[in-house]
Amino acid sequence: MKNGCEIMTLDSVCKFLRENDNYLILTHASPDGDTIGSAVALSLLLKQLGKRSRTVFSEPVGKKYSYLADCTGGDFTPAAIIAVDVADIKLLDGDCKAAGVPDLCIDHHPTNTQFAGRLYLESDAAACCECVYHIAEHLRADITADIANALYTGITTDTGCFKYSNVTANTHKIAAELIEKGAAAAEINRLMFETNSRAKIEMEKAALETIKYYFGGKCAVMTVTLDMINRTGCEKSELEGITPIPRTIEGVVVGVTLKETEKGVFKVSFRTHEPIDACKIAALLGGGGHMRAAGCRVKGTAEEAEKLCLQAVGKMLVGQ
Amino acid sequence: MKNGCEIMTLDSVCKFLRENDNYLILTHASPDGDTIGSAVALSLLLKQLGKRSRTVFSEPVGKKYSYLADCTGGDFTPAAIIAVDVADIKLLDGDCKAAGVPDLCIDHHPTNTQFAGRLYLESDAAACCECVYHIAEHLRADITADIANALYTGITTDTGCFKYSNVTANTHKIAAELIEKGAAAAEINRLMFETNSRAKIEMEKAALETIKYYFGGKCAVMTVTLDMINRTGCEKSELEGITPIPRTIEGVVVGVTLKETEKGVFKVSFRTHEPIDACKIAALLGGGGHMRAAGCRVKGTAEEAEKLCLQAVGKMLVGQ
Repeated sequence: MKNGCEIMTLDSVCKFLRENDNYLILTHASPDGDTIGSAVALSLLLKQLGKRSRTVFSEPVGKKYSYLADCTGGDFTPAAIIAVDVADIKLLDGDCKAAGVPDLCIDHHPTNTQFAGRLYLESDAAACCECVYHIAEHLRADITADIANALYTGITTDTGCFKYSNVTANTHKIAAELIEKGAAAAEINRLMFETNSRAKIEMEKAALETIKYYFGGKCAVMTVTLDMINRTGCEKSELEGITPIPRTIEGVVVGVTLKETEKGVFKVSFRTHEPIDACKIAALLGGGGHMRAAGCRVKGTAEEAEKLCLQAVGKMLVGQ
Repeated sequence: MKNGCEIMTLDSVCKFLRENDNYLILTHASPDGDTIGSAVALSLLLKQLGKRSRTVFSEPVGKKYSYLADCTGGDFTPAAIIAVDVADIKLLDGDCKAAGVPDLCIDHHPTNTQFAGRLYLESDAAACCECVYHIAEHLRADITADIANALYTGITTDTGCFKYSNVTANTHKIAAELIEKGAAAAEINRLMFETNSRAKIEMEKAALETIKYYFGGKCAVMTVTLDMINRTGCEKSELEGITPIPRTIEGVVVGVTLKETEKGVFKVSFRTHEPIDACKIAALLGGGGHMRAAGCRVKGTAEEAEKLCLQAVGKMLVGQ
């Protein structure tokens, strides 16, 4: 227990939901399918309990999520604040930040900083929507098609459509249940994973053009400049699908993507395969992260930024 | 019942497997994850029953499948032939064709032509590996990690990693079981979906360059010429990941991909969204297929082939 945060069981979190009312639901910055899906499903569950709730997003939700039930309405004075899929108070932005410290956080990140008054954490869940599913089950709620769609959305987006290593047997069991309850799985997956804007296609073409190989093909570097972003009109959320490409190339153990965030400033992402530690590479440039994915910021022209990154990569590749 | 083909139940197919021995397992042309996974899993199951088997592939299996158990060895005279994931005898090629008419076909294609002596068909299964899983269960076999890996491979590849509309709740339930039995799901998915050769990256870049939009953006056409294939060295199996791109673009209802198979001959794929019938478009050019994916062959230069396709597309888009 940190910061006086009460760790909750499935039983106690359900009790909390039943005993309070007039909920404000908070989501994390740059809202993704899991924070949105968790909020939508939770608000529908609360409605079944006869409660009022209203969800706050720090920025407008992408239009590709428009098939989800709307949970932003409701005019009342909030009496309890719940954050969903929020690992750290720093991830509450804009109106979510202004709302105050949450009374309860429902989350699946093992790194959750226990910033809320209470925490219901399933640290082995692939998505926060798995936690909300368990809450729904424990509440003996009616999992309607709307709830199933919301929960399926969070699970499929947080697992890259059941592709990543966070997927467990339990993730698939929940997906099976949600499909039985009416989740439009194929349609959701088409919207999430198989819909590209023309701008994204243009960006992908331009980004692939920049790929260069170093260290005998063990390192691939891709560069996305402000000019490319402006020229193609590619949105931030779409760029996310493009930046992981370098590591996917056969023989590459360190994939580097340089993304210009403001003139002369690059956000660098390092993605590695075993045995290279991406975090150690990023640390050499003042950044940090995980074993397989880490990042830092580098200043200079694209050429200068790339050179700095290659020096750091080179140090870690020595002897490999 | 067609051609005197005996339709088998789960019970009778298991009886057949128990009562015979010295099996030759046949796979379909251009072997994919499902026909390979089914063959590998079936051969391991037969081994548990104390039977001998040998699998025949019409062409070498891609090296990305090298993590699967080898099932091609075994020197004996076959006494029973089983085809897996083969919908039509025309799909038996090379050594598979030479082997003769199968005594049993295990399949999941609703279009199976009942070409074998016996057919065990699960027409609502997303993959033939689902059928083999049910056979394993019914045999009360020990689903080892090797069997789980083989079955998971077929299921994930035939569903685009649980993305397509053929996925049912049952597909996810089986995936859950296979992960519990030790299937290395994340690693398999990385090999199947997140590994690109440099040649594929080059091809993708070149193919994206060719995309053109017609009919107010409702139709996108991509062209892959022999020259592009030769220049990049992109393999057939890798091309399959690139050809669906046109339909994924926002606003596009007919995605067309022209692939030059020999000088001046194009294999055309039409992929559509509702309400456009791809099969009707292909039929205008002497081809056929399904509502959402169909194809035909067209002769001429790339420009001539494209013009013919656009005429056919235009006829179907009229009034839309």
